[in-house]
Parts: sequence; structure tokens; C-alpha cells
Amino acid sequence: MSSQSSQQQPKRPLTILQKSLNRKVAVRLKNEIEYRGRMNNVDSYMNLILLDAEEYHGSDVLANYGKVVIRGNNVLFIKLEKEF
Amino acid sequence: MSSQSSQQQPKRPLTILQKSLNRKVAVRLKNEIEYRGRMNNVDSYMNLILLDAEEYHGSDVLANYGKVVIRGNNVLFIKLEKEF
Amino acid sequence: MSSQSSQQQPKRPLTILQKSLNRKVAVRLKNEIEYRGRMNNVDSYMNLILLDAEEYHGSDVLANYGKVVIRGNNVLFIKLEKEF
Amino acid sequence: MSSQSSQQQPKRPLTILQKSLNRKVAVRLKNEIEYRGRMNNVDSYMNLILLDAEEYHGSDVLANYGKVVIRGNNVLFIKLEKEF
Amino acid sequence: MSSQSSQQQPKRPLTILQKSLNRKVAVRLKNEIEYRGRMNNVDSYMNLILLDAEEYHGSDVLANYGKVVIRGNNVLFIKLEKEF
Amino acid sequence: MSSQSSQQQPKRPLTILQKSLNRKVAVRLKNEIEYRGRMNNVDSYMNLILLDAEEYHGSDVLANYGKVVIRGNNVLFIKLEKEF
Amino acid sequence: MSSQSSQQQPKRPLTILQKSLNRKVAVRLKNEIEYRGRMNNVDSYMNLILLDAEEYHGSDVLANYGKVVIRGNNVLFIKLEKEF
Repeated sequence: MSSQSSQQQPKRPLTILQKSLNRKVAVRLKNEIEYRGRMNNVDSYMNLILLDAEEYHGSDVLANYGKVVIRGNNVLFIKLEKEF
Repeated sequence: MSSQSSQQQPKRPLTILQKSLNRKVAVRLKNEIEYRGRMNNVDSYMNLILLDAEEYHGSDVLANYGKVVIRGNNVLFIKLEKEF
Repeated sequence: MSSQSSQQQPKRPLTILQKSLNRKVAVRLKNEIEYRGRMNNVDSYMNLILLDAEEYHGSDVLANYGKVVIRGNNVLFIKLEKEF
Repeated sequence: MSSQSSQQQPKRPLTILQKSLNRKVAVRLKNEIEYRGRMNNVDSYMNLILLDAEEYHGSDVLANYGKVVIRGNNVLFIKLEKEF
Repeated sequence: MSSQSSQQQPKRPLTILQKSLNRKVAVRLKNEIEYRGRMNNVDSYMNLILLDAEEYHGSDVLANYGKVVIRGNNVLFIKLEKEF
Repeated sequence: MSSQSSQQQPKRPLTILQKSLNRKVAVRLKNEIEYRGRMNNVDSYMNLILLDAEEYHGSDVLANYGKVVIRGNNVLFIKLEKEF
Repeated sequence: MSSQSSQQQPKRPLTILQKSLNRKVAVRLKNEIEYRGRMNNVDSYMNLILLDAEEYHGSDVLANYGKVVIRGNNVLFIKLEKEF
């Protein structure tokens, strides 16, 4: 909105997550395990549903999950992957 | 609802859990122990009741539980198993 | 209630606990210690009173407690024992 | 109250604690240290005042405390000692 | 108040702390470090101000603090020292 | 505002963060990992969105992230970088 | 205010912090790292802004920070330095 930049007003973190449903994400938990899949939904606590998720420790795939609900308090970060 | 996809509006994580009562689930706790059984019920804190549950550490079965109430704050994730 | 099953509506986890007063339970805490006794009462925080409790680490009995109040935030799970 | 048992309605955990003022208790904390003394008072958070308390690690007495206020969030359990 | 004892009604833990301002206290934190000094003030969260405090690990004095504010959530217990 | 200094009234920590959108920041988490990037947005819980973030452990770059949402409860501190 | 002492009513911990803006402080975190600088502001959660801060582990300076926002839940204590 400012004259210095033509950017829109930046969105709050939880709003950005809501706007990113069905995008691919990588969710790192506090225990260093990472889950990569499609973010079907998320709430304000960062509880989230991943579809077709892969569980990684570093570069090793540990398991596959069709549909998994992650409890938000374990989340370290959610990386939003670029869409092609 | 969008014209791009014929999907319904995605459901919030806690709603998905409520819609999945009596399904088979695998519940991983923060201490890395996993409980697999039928999810008899769950509340918004992710406190849940499992029936006919098996306790796993990795692929080892440690114990069996007819009916167990898990306190939600220990939950890392809840995997919803496919029904056949 | 559904036509598919003649089950009653499943009860919420905290309701199940309230309906189970005076039953034998095994309470596992986050520190892996387990307390087995009769659940005299419990509240919504999972604070609970056990009577005639035995304290176990694995299969070793460590101590006996006539009446003990466990603070709910330490609870990992509460196993409801079958009654005979 | 039920016809099956002549027991009184069991009391909630925090009520039991309030009814037990001036009784001897053993308070185990999450760090495995135990404090034994007379419970002068307690609140709903399980903050409590102990009088003439002894601090134990296992069976070793580590210290004596005339009057000590323990912060409730550290409490694992409170054992109510029998009175003679 | 009861006829059995001539004691006054025992005071709640946070009230006892408020009644003990300017007394000498020993504050043990969860990390096992202890701070001994004069309790200038305290609030319901057990945030407290100590004056002329000494920091101990066991019987070793680690440091001296003229005026320090301790965040309540770290407190394990507060020992009230006898006044002479 | 005081006559002793011509400084403006200092701003509260969360206000300072809101005034610093689009600045470069270094976010240290409790697990000692640090994320450096442009702070696109932040909320009162310190959930924040970083753009073009680099993940450091000490001086080693571990990974790059185009857009990442960090959950606020993991944050140790947020360093505001000088702008040139 | 009492006749026994001519002291003023002691101030609550969070009030003392608010009265100490722009003073030099040493902030010890739970991870044992200490930050020394000028406390530009602080809120009731003990989130605080430090200016010209030095990061110490024991007596080693690890880094310098022009302006850093520390999340309050990590704070162990805040030492208020004497002004000269």
C-alpha cells in the first residue's frame, strides 16, 4: 500500500496458512522428523491434515501416510513449497 | 467448490477426527510409542479412546489394551487407516 | 444410532472416565512409571485419585499407596481394566 | 448413593486435597525428589504449603524445611498418609 | 476455628507468600540452582523480586545479585526462612 | 516524552516486531537452529513468516527456504538486522 | 507505609520491570545463555527488547546484537544492574 512498494499488505502467518490449502508443504516437528505432503487443512493451533505424506529423518524416508492429523503443538515450522 | 476442482470444502483437522470415529488409527506419542486400534472417540484436545489397542515401539508389539484413554497433549500425530 | 450399527453413540473420553469410577485402572505417566489401583475419582484435567495403588516400573513393584492424588498433566494414558 | 453400593458419592481430586489439610503427605515432584510433611494448605493449581518437611531422594534425607511453598506444576503426585 | 484445634484457618499458598514480603527466602529453580535473599515482592504467578540475593549450586555460591526478578514458571519451591 | 531525554516513549516488544515487517531478521529457536530471512509477517504469539530464509547451525548453512511459517512457541529471540 | 518501616509499599515484579526501562540488565535464559544490554521495553509476558546486547556463556562473549526481541517464556531471571 505504501508508495515505496507496490506490495499488498502482508498477511498474518495463520492467514497465509489458510490461503495455502492443498499446497505441498514440509512440516518439521520438534523431534526433527519432517512430514512432506499436501496440506488438506490446518487450524489456528497449527493442527493440520496432510495427504499422501512421507516421513523423513534427514534424507531418509521412514514411512508413508495416506492421511495423517498432526497435533499443532509439535510443529517447528511449515515450509510452503513452490507450485509448478 | 471451485471450478478448478470438484472437491468439497476441506474439513478442519478436529472435524476430520470427529468424522472418523470407529476407524482404525495409529496414534504416535511424543515418546515414540505408537498405539494402533479403533478410535472409539476423541475430543478437541485430542484426548482419545482406543479399543483393542496394540502398543508398538517400532515393529515390536509391547502390550495389548482392551480400552485405553490417551491424554491428548502427548499426541504427535494420528494416522487414519484406510478401511476395506 | 446409524442403521449400519446398533451401537449407541460413543461417549467422549472424559465422559468415559467419569462413567468408570471405582474401576481398576492402570495409569501410565510420562516418566514411564505406572500406577495400578482403583480409580476413586477423576476430573476434566485428568487429576485422579487412586486407592490401593501399586507403583510399577515395567514388571517391578516399587511401592504401595493407600490413597494417592496424581496430577493430570503427567498422565500418558489410563487403561481401563476389565471387571470380572 | 446407588443401591449397589452404600458408598457416598466419591469426591473430586481437588476436593479430597482440601479435605485433607493438616494431614501428613508425601509429595513427589517431576524431578523425582520427594517432600514429606504436614500439608498446611493447597490450592486448585496444587501449589501447596508443607510444614516440617523433609526432602528425600529415594530413602536419603537431603534437607529439612520448616515451611516451604511448592509450585503446583512440578507435582507428580500427592500421597495422603494414614493418620493414627 | 474448629473446637478440636485453636489454630486459625490455614492460609492459601499465594496468600502466605504475600504475607511474607521482606522475609528471607530460598528459591529453588527447576534447574537446581537456588537463590537466597530477601523477597521484596511476588505475584500470583510466583514471579518474584529478590534483593541481595546469592546464587547457589549445592553449597557453592556462584554469584551475587543486588536486585533480580525471577520468572515464576521456573520455580520449584520457595522456602520461608525463620526470622530472628 | 520526559524532559530528561528527548526519546519517544519506548515501544512494546510486539509493537516493535509489527513495525519491523519486511526487515531482515535472524530468528534463533530453542533447538539452537537459526533462520535468517526477511520477516514478511508476525503475530502476537511470535508465529512468523520468513521469506528467502537460510537455516544455520552455528556458521553452517543447512538449507534454504523460499517461504516458511515458524511456530512462535519455538522462538528464543528475534534479532532485527540493521538496514542499509 | 507501616509505622514499623518507612519503606514504601513494595512494587510487584512486573511493575518493577516497567519502572526499569532503559536500565542495564542481564537476562539469563533457561538454556544458560545470558544477554546483557539496555532493556528498551518489556511486557507482562516478559517478552523484552534489548539494545546493544552481548550474548554470554559463562564469561565468554559469543555475539553482539544491536536490537533483539527475546521471547518471555525462555527467561529464567532478569538482573537489574546498578546505575552509576
